[in-house]
Parts: sequence; structure tokens; C-alpha cells
Amino acid sequence: MQDFQQIINTIHTDLKNEIDRGLVANYIPELSHIDAKNFGIHLKLISGESFSVGESHVPFSIQSISKVFALSKAFQLQGDALWKRMDVEPSGDPFNQLSLLELENGIPRNPFINSGAIVIADILVSQLENPKEDLIQFVRDLANDQTIDYNLEVAASEKATGFNNFAAANLLKSFRNLENDVDTVLDFYFHQCAIEMNCEQLTNAFYLFANHGTCLQNKQWLSASQIKRINAIMLTCGFYDEAGEFAFEVGLPGKSGVGGGIVALLPNNLVISTWSPGLNPRGNSKIGMQALEAFTTKTKLSIF
Amino acid sequence: MQDFQQIINTIHTDLKNEIDRGLVANYIPELSHIDAKNFGIHLKLISGESFSVGESHVPFSIQSISKVFALSKAFQLQGDALWKRMDVEPSGDPFNQLSLLELENGIPRNPFINSGAIVIADILVSQLENPKEDLIQFVRDLANDQTIDYNLEVAASEKATGFNNFAAANLLKSFRNLENDVDTVLDFYFHQCAIEMNCEQLTNAFYLFANHGTCLQNKQWLSASQIKRINAIMLTCGFYDEAGEFAFEVGLPGKSGVGGGIVALLPNNLVISTWSPGLNPRGNSKIGMQALEAFTTKTKLSIF
Amino acid sequence: MQDFQQIINTIHTDLKNEIDRGLVANYIPELSHIDAKNFGIHLKLISGESFSVGESHVPFSIQSISKVFALSKAFQLQGDALWKRMDVEPSGDPFNQLSLLELENGIPRNPFINSGAIVIADILVSQLENPKEDLIQFVRDLANDQTIDYNLEVAASEKATGFNNFAAANLLKSFRNLENDVDTVLDFYFHQCAIEMNCEQLTNAFYLFANHGTCLQNKQWLSASQIKRINAIMLTCGFYDEAGEFAFEVGLPGKSGVGGGIVALLPNNLVISTWSPGLNPRGNSKIGMQALEAFTTKTKLSIF
Amino acid sequence: MQDFQQIINTIHTDLKNEIDRGLVANYIPELSHIDAKNFGIHLKLISGESFSVGESHVPFSIQSISKVFALSKAFQLQGDALWKRMDVEPSGDPFNQLSLLELENGIPRNPFINSGAIVIADILVSQLENPKEDLIQFVRDLANDQTIDYNLEVAASEKATGFNNFAAANLLKSFRNLENDVDTVLDFYFHQCAIEMNCEQLTNAFYLFANHGTCLQNKQWLSASQIKRINAIMLTCGFYDEAGEFAFEVGLPGKSGVGGGIVALLPNNLVISTWSPGLNPRGNSKIGMQALEAFTTKTKLSIF
Repeated sequence: MQDFQQIINTIHTDLKNEIDRGLVANYIPELSHIDAKNFGIHLKLISGESFSVGESHVPFSIQSISKVFALSKAFQLQGDALWKRMDVEPSGDPFNQLSLLELENGIPRNPFINSGAIVIADILVSQLENPKEDLIQFVRDLANDQTIDYNLEVAASEKATGFNNFAAANLLKSFRNLENDVDTVLDFYFHQCAIEMNCEQLTNAFYLFANHGTCLQNKQWLSASQIKRINAIMLTCGFYDEAGEFAFEVGLPGKSGVGGGIVALLPNNLVISTWSPGLNPRGNSKIGMQALEAFTTKTKLSIF
Repeated sequence: MQDFQQIINTIHTDLKNEIDRGLVANYIPELSHIDAKNFGIHLKLISGESFSVGESHVPFSIQSISKVFALSKAFQLQGDALWKRMDVEPSGDPFNQLSLLELENGIPRNPFINSGAIVIADILVSQLENPKEDLIQFVRDLANDQTIDYNLEVAASEKATGFNNFAAANLLKSFRNLENDVDTVLDFYFHQCAIEMNCEQLTNAFYLFANHGTCLQNKQWLSASQIKRINAIMLTCGFYDEAGEFAFEVGLPGKSGVGGGIVALLPNNLVISTWSPGLNPRGNSKIGMQALEAFTTKTKLSIF
Repeated sequence: MQDFQQIINTIHTDLKNEIDRGLVANYIPELSHIDAKNFGIHLKLISGESFSVGESHVPFSIQSISKVFALSKAFQLQGDALWKRMDVEPSGDPFNQLSLLELENGIPRNPFINSGAIVIADILVSQLENPKEDLIQFVRDLANDQTIDYNLEVAASEKATGFNNFAAANLLKSFRNLENDVDTVLDFYFHQCAIEMNCEQLTNAFYLFANHGTCLQNKQWLSASQIKRINAIMLTCGFYDEAGEFAFEVGLPGKSGVGGGIVALLPNNLVISTWSPGLNPRGNSKIGMQALEAFTTKTKLSIF
Repeated sequence: MQDFQQIINTIHTDLKNEIDRGLVANYIPELSHIDAKNFGIHLKLISGESFSVGESHVPFSIQSISKVFALSKAFQLQGDALWKRMDVEPSGDPFNQLSLLELENGIPRNPFINSGAIVIADILVSQLENPKEDLIQFVRDLANDQTIDYNLEVAASEKATGFNNFAAANLLKSFRNLENDVDTVLDFYFHQCAIEMNCEQLTNAFYLFANHGTCLQNKQWLSASQIKRINAIMLTCGFYDEAGEFAFEVGLPGKSGVGGGIVALLPNNLVISTWSPGLNPRGNSKIGMQALEAFTTKTKLSIF
């Protein structure tokens, strides 16, 4: 067996002093103040063994990583009915997100572009009794950690500046692909993006995606077939318009967020999370991408 | 001199029993209930002589025709500073209005597509002391008729269903091309679209565009050069993605609205308005387009 | 009556030493060698009076201005059947010419974008006995000047580098909107673009567009209605994605070419041609655009 | 161990009489004449064991599947220098292939869309001494079968009707992303698409993709890292705009062609090919997609 602690230590050492760390997201004050030097890694094997290095216990805003939790909850509740309201194709296109929605008559390309995630939020608002409470409880249960919570300042800031999401939600509404009213759905959505977790919590919460749907506490939340499908979507759509690049360089299903977090997994084997707040021009953590590429190169682990 | 009364009588007779009158706009109840048989024409020569036929005195919702009034007021207030916030090129493109805005970084293609008209509305909200009162007063003064007013039910319905406009306004806001908040600007915009006028009032209000900026009451509102430019925009952008067709078939600057109104003009010569509520697939009054084509064919009048 | 000679003299004096003259087209050697200082104007009134200044007798490559001659010949031969194979809407869009063609299933947006002009060329190849001889003869007859000819070096260079036109022609062929084979049509098209004329010849050749279809020699080539329609297309589509700007600033139907020529006209009044080889970023003669704007400002002549 | 023979027998029995088999490609006569009832499967385990059912020995036109061979050869010859001339992102977009190329300045989105495959063909034309002979020899060696060959009638038909590919190649040339002349590159490309193989040959030829770059004859052709990357591109881009759907439903890297073939693989485990000529609306074999979905459902094998 490989010495995983030494591998992540080496990666951490190699990258922790890298000068060019990308740019910290600055569209809201809460994100812009984060120190770009932060860099943590947490790895958990399917056997339960864990390995940590760096700022792996500092909570950060998981942002778009939350879309995986929301999709999982909605898939659990609705099953394949979900796919009537969105597609599962990669968008590949940095240019014109809203135009894609226009050209395709209000059917989002996949559940991880913003318009798709807003439709998922709409489904959860319709289906959950107490949407915000129920979603955070789902995340806590997956991670087996009841301290996980929303950062309300972040949620409020997202709301105050999220004009692009208001545009997308209204466009969905104009195509009758939003059941609830725009403000309610986006209030839920902005909270979802404002969940704070650290690398260890994220890794634990994603354990079920490497384990056919059964979480750390041995509870089966989704079927093996559903998990396989979510993993496929992560691989093809999990990194904005850099999904192909991530599959090409890293070769694992995963999801990133503009808070600088990335989580990736190898089915039957392991889950790994990284956090480094600086982003590359395509919105993914610059150091995190390099760390994961180094990890799969050194370990020769990959789905391909 | 031509016998204009006989010409419009003939056109009216020829078209009033046409079976295929297009489809009345039905996105709000107030518009959908209008009888498609309505058909009026009002013509005024630059000399002041007027000619009417049919339902030329029945008020209707002028909708996008109001964009000419709003543009004129904003041009009067801001002069060429206006063009920093929008372009004057035809859009020509029925497919992806919001994507155009995305591709061009929030600069609307021209002041008559919805996003451009929303920027104009934003300017008026910033510049006018009492935006709604001041705009309607401007229209009343142009038409020399103090009875013209907003239809508040129409404005309320537009607001309740105008998700596409909310999408456009939020997208503009995300590109920092909207100064005021979305709700305030759209409240003004929806009122503007809900102005009710009849063919005669419209014709009178457009008299200044055929008369180098001087209205019926002999007041100069805009310079000859500004009027020339507004006429140019009407010709190239006044009929959604059918502007080229209108220039080709009719050959006059003009503006249409989904309420079924069209107003067109020949500089130094005349203004003519038509109203027939049924629309062709591109959103312009079907019978109105035919009436204006017949008018320029019979009279051989055209800017070309 | 205005002193037209003095007006064009003043314009010429004001602009002839302008430092920023734009960039001379350099995609083929024959165009790149032209001296950017060249600047000529030729004006002809409908009465027949002529006025010249500067290099108005130096021949240049008329390039896209030839599309007006080709359209006129095809319209004469086919009448309205022409419009089954192309539309008359402005393109307005600098971004994706071929994609427009894809989105609209091989129907070019108008006869002046390259794909539309290639369809026109295809029609002439099908309809004319000796396409190249017949087209140049048509131009000579319109201008009443039998010395006008193709520049064969320019035609050969266009052919050797015109990959974008080969792309467009093949795309048209894939949509079955090209009857003849690609090489034959483009050979004709590249010759058409390589016609050489000077400002006076161009002005004379366009006389019929200001005169309801009757040329200088008093021969009626097209009907008044057809001429009106060609003028409308020139206004809405004659200046690439700057058509709206030209209508807005100048207010005359016209056509430009990347050789630096522009010809514009006021129906019933006059035709005016300018030549200055430097182009603005949108591909129209920089000094020519300024000269025409100055001309309509000084004379207060415009269709609007 | 699973009873693979029984599994593919069951799948074959379940689908062989399916009424709705999709539409056989008809753009060239050679493809349109194939009987839609054909249906073969060939499976090879990494251990070398093989399983066949149906028309698994009838040769068919592999069409776009050949893009994997061409990419592999070019990757072997050029290494990562390849990626300067194209990207690895999924296109996801059925609407406007050429416009993508325009928007992205002549850099194809990935090596499996036609424009990307044409750039690969250009590289092979530049790098191989006898391009056509060398490519077919590479395929023969991978499959360990010297009888594999081009179908020259198919190649000739592709050439006679491939206007869209001529459009793409000329557009690439206009962006200077094609070194050789269009006719030479496309002659090679049309031959490449016209390779004929049967399911068994295809399966054998793809063995190296499941075996870290080492083929059946135990020769290492590409590095493990290169193979991982080609597999990643197959997963994200291998099925036109249905790549996400295939990843979602099947969960294996693979490649399809309009001849009705599909080949897919599970690294370290197996390669499987299917052939059924009828296509679904997105251009992939209808029965083949169903067969592979059934195979991964029954065997629970998937990369996810």
C-alpha cells in the first residue's frame, strides 16, 4: 500500500509556497478577505483511514460544491422525474450561459450550471417541509457532524449582488421551469451556496459517492445506480468549462467551488478534498487543481 | 395632389374582411380580449390635413411604440451621452436576446430591443423628477391631448408576467449598466408600455418626427439632427427582427407594438398610424403591415 | 441652391491631412500597397451636374460595392424569386457569420453579407450566358464607360487566400443553397470583387438608384419598386455591422468596400462616391465615413 | 465471475427484434443500403477471453470511431504539443459547430468534433511518410489483423458530399490552423472515416485502451498517462452531444460512429463493441446504446 500521508505531505510542501496562487474571489467582501496562503488537504480511504495536511480543519465557503448535496437530495426525493426539467450534458461554453438557456427553451444543460442548480433549488423548495433546515441537516448527517452550518453574512451578500442568478431565475420562470417565486428559490439557493465546511467535513460528506450510496454511518441514502449517475455528472460537468481539462489531467469525478474548495473521489477507493482560495481564470482553485493532478500522477489512481 | 381619403378608404375596404388577421397577443388578459376585427387608420399631412377611417379613435395599448417617446425624452435630456450605454445597430436576431447582451458585455444592441429600452427607462428614472408623471405629460404635450394616460391594469399584468424583462434588467445590473434598482426601473418601464392612445393621437404625437423636431403646437422639442437620428433608428430597428422586411416592403421609418399599433412617417410629408390587433409570427400587426405596404405602393411615397 | 463644389472642397481640405486614416486592407498584396493618402470625392446631381475633388479619377478595387451590381443584375433576371434563397434582414453581428448561416439553415441573412453575395453569384452563374463578360458589361453600361474591367491579379489573390469564402460556399452547398459547384461560383465571385473603378465611374454607375431605375443614358434597367427595395437593403445592410451607425450618422443608402470606396445616394437628388483606402475597425473607409457625415451635416440632406 | 456469454446473449435476444431501431445514415448510398436488422456484440476481457453474439464478424464503416485511432497516432508522434492546436473540452452543443470554431478563433473544442479531427488529420499528413498507408497499418497492428482496409467507394462518396467538412477545413485554414492544403487533408480524413472493421476487430484494436497502452501483441504504443487522457476524452467527448447521457447511462469511455458502431471499455477489465446501423436522433446507434446500458446494468461494471 502507498504511503498516502507522505504523498500529501510532499504535494503540500511543493505547492504551499507557490507564488502564483490565482485570484481570490472578490465579488462579495466575505470571500475577498480570505488569506490566499491557506492550503489544506484531507484524504479518506474507503477503509476509513484518514490523512490530513495544512489548513484542513479551517472552514470555508463551499459555494458550488453544495450543488452536489442539493442534487443528491433532489434525486433521492424525485428519482428520474428530475431529468424532465434539466439535461445531463456538459455545457463546455464559457460565453453565453443565459443564451444556452434561451436556445434550449429553458431546459438547463445540467444540474451544475447555475440555471440547473436553481431548478434543483426550486424542486427542494417544493418538496422539503423546511427547505433550509432540511438541507443543512442532510449535509450534517452525511458528514456525521452536527456543527456544520450556513454563513448568513455570505448568504446575504450573495443575495445583494447575485444579479446574474436573478436573471437566470427569471428566465427560467419565463419558460415555466420554476414553480416557486424567484425570491423564495434564490433565498434558498444563496443559503445553500453559503454552507461552510472544512476539508475533513467535505471528505466525510462525500464518502457515500465512493461507497455506492452508503455513508460513513453505514446508512444507504441513494442507490448504487443513482450514485453512479451523480459521479458521471461530476466528471462531465463538475468544473465549469474546465471539466474536460480536469478529466484529462486528474481523471476523477469531483466538484469545485469559487470558495477555493475541490472534492474528488475514486469509487471503491477514496475521497480527497483540497482548499486553496486563489482561483484560476476559469474559476477553479489553482493550487487545488495542481494538488489533485499531482496526487493522481503520484498514486497512479484514476477512473481511466 | 393625391386623394388620400380615397386611398385609405380603399385600403381599409380591401383588408377589413381579411380572414387571416394574425393572432392577438395573449400573454396578458387585457390584451387577449381585444377584438381582432378592429382596424383603424389615421393620416396627417405635414400641412396639417387629416384623414381617418375605421377604428381610428379607439384607444389601444401602444406597448413598444412607447420606446420612441422614451428615447426622445432621454435624448433630449442627455444628448449623445446616451450612446455610451447602448449601440444603434439592428439586432436582426430572433434567437437569443439575452445572449446578445452577454456577448456584448451588457451593452444593448439598440434602444428598441427590450434591454435597450430598459436602459432608457433607467436613464429617465434617474433624470426625471417624477418619472411616470413627466413621461406621460411629454406624450400628452406631443399629441396635444391631455386625456392620454396609462392603463394601470395593463401595467400591473405586465409586471406580474414580465419575467423575461426581469431577466434582462438583472443581467444589465450584473454588467453595471443599470443605475437604479431593478424593481423601480421595471415599474416605470411597464407603465410606459401600458400607455393607451388611438391612431389619431399617435399620429399627432409623431408629427415632430416628420417635422424636424417641431410638434403640432409649433414647439421645438429636439434638434433636426436628433430627429434624423431617431428616424434612422426607427428604420433600422423599429420592427424587431422584421426591420429589414419593413424597410424593403414599406420604406418608411416607423415603430410597431404588440398591441397591434404601427406608426410610420415620411419626413417633410406625413405621419400615418394603423391599428389592427392580430400579429404576424414576428410580433408586428399583420393587417397593419399590409395596409402600410399598400399605402406606399399606391402613393409611391417612400424615403427610398 | 447650395455650392456643392465648395462644400466638397472644404470637406477634402479638412480631412486630407488627417493623421489617423485607419488601416489599409492587407490580406492581399494588391490592396496593401495602396497609398493611404489617396482621397477622392465625386458628386453627381440628378440634374446631371458633377463635382470632383482629389483622387476622384484614380481607379481602385471596388470589392463589396460590386455586390450592389450583382444584386441588381440578379433582381432584374429573377425578380422576387430571389428572396426564396436569402432574407433581407440586417445581420448586425460581427461575431459569427457562419453560425448565422448554420442557425438559419443555409439561408443568408441578406444579399450583402458574404454568404448572401455568394448565393447571388450562384444565380448569375446559372442565369448568364457568359457570367464574367455579362456582369462587367452591365457595369460598363450603367457607368457609360466601356473601359471598366476586372483586375485579374486581385481576383487571383482573392482566390488564393479566400478560405473564409470557401468555407461559406461549402456550408451553403451542404444546405443545398448553391446550384453550381463551389469553385465555379467563387471564381466568378472573386472576379466580381476585383472590378476596378474610380469615384466618377462609381457615381455614374449608381445614378439609376437615385433615379427610379433609369441610368444616365436614359435606359430603364429595373423598376422603381425594385430600386426602392435595393436602396432599402443598402441602408439596412450596406455597411457590415456598422449599418445602423451609418444610417444614424449619415442617413443615406450606400455601400462600402474594403478597397476604401463608399458610394451613397439621396433618391431624386444625388449620388456621391468617396475613396480613401484606410479602414476603421469595422472595415469601412475611415475618412470616407467622416466625409459623408460632414457632407450630410453641411448640406442637411438625408432621407430622414 | 459473471457469465458474460449468457449476459450478451440475453441482451442480444432482448433487442434483436426491437421494432424501433432508429434510422440508418443515408447521406451516402454505401451507408444507406445496410440492413438495419444487423446487430452484433463482441466482448474481450483483459485476460484475453472473448465472447461474441450476432453479426459480430460482419465488417462495417467505422466512421468517427476512426478518430480515436488518428488521435492515438498523433499523440504518439507529437505528445502534448498536440494541445496547442485544439482543446479537450466537450462541445455539448448540437446547434452551431462552425460558430464554435469562429468564436474560439479556429481552435477546435476537442479532437472528436469534426473540426478537431480535421486538425488531427492535418498533423498526420504532415508527420507520416505515407499517411494513408501508415494509418491503416497502425490500425492493423493494434487489431493484429492485416486484412483491415479502407472502403474506397465510401471514401469517394464522403468526398463528393462532404461540403460541411470542406467548410470546416477552410475555416480552420482561414484561422491558420491547417498546415496542408484542404484537399490533401480531407482526402486523408475521408479515407480514415471509411475504414471497415467488424466488432471483433474493433474490440481487439481498442484493447490497449483498457491495458495502459499495451496492445494484444504485448507492444506498448502509448504511455499509461497518454492512454488515461485519451480515455478521458472518450468519456467527455465521445458521443457528439450525447456524451453526458452516455456517461450517465452507461458510465464507460467509448466512441461511436454513424456507421452504427460503438466501442467502450473499462480500464483493467474489458473492451466491448456493438454494431447496429440504425441511429438515434443524436447520431449514435440506437440499439447499441441500449445494449451497452443493459450490459453495465446487468454486470454492475462502470468507471463510476
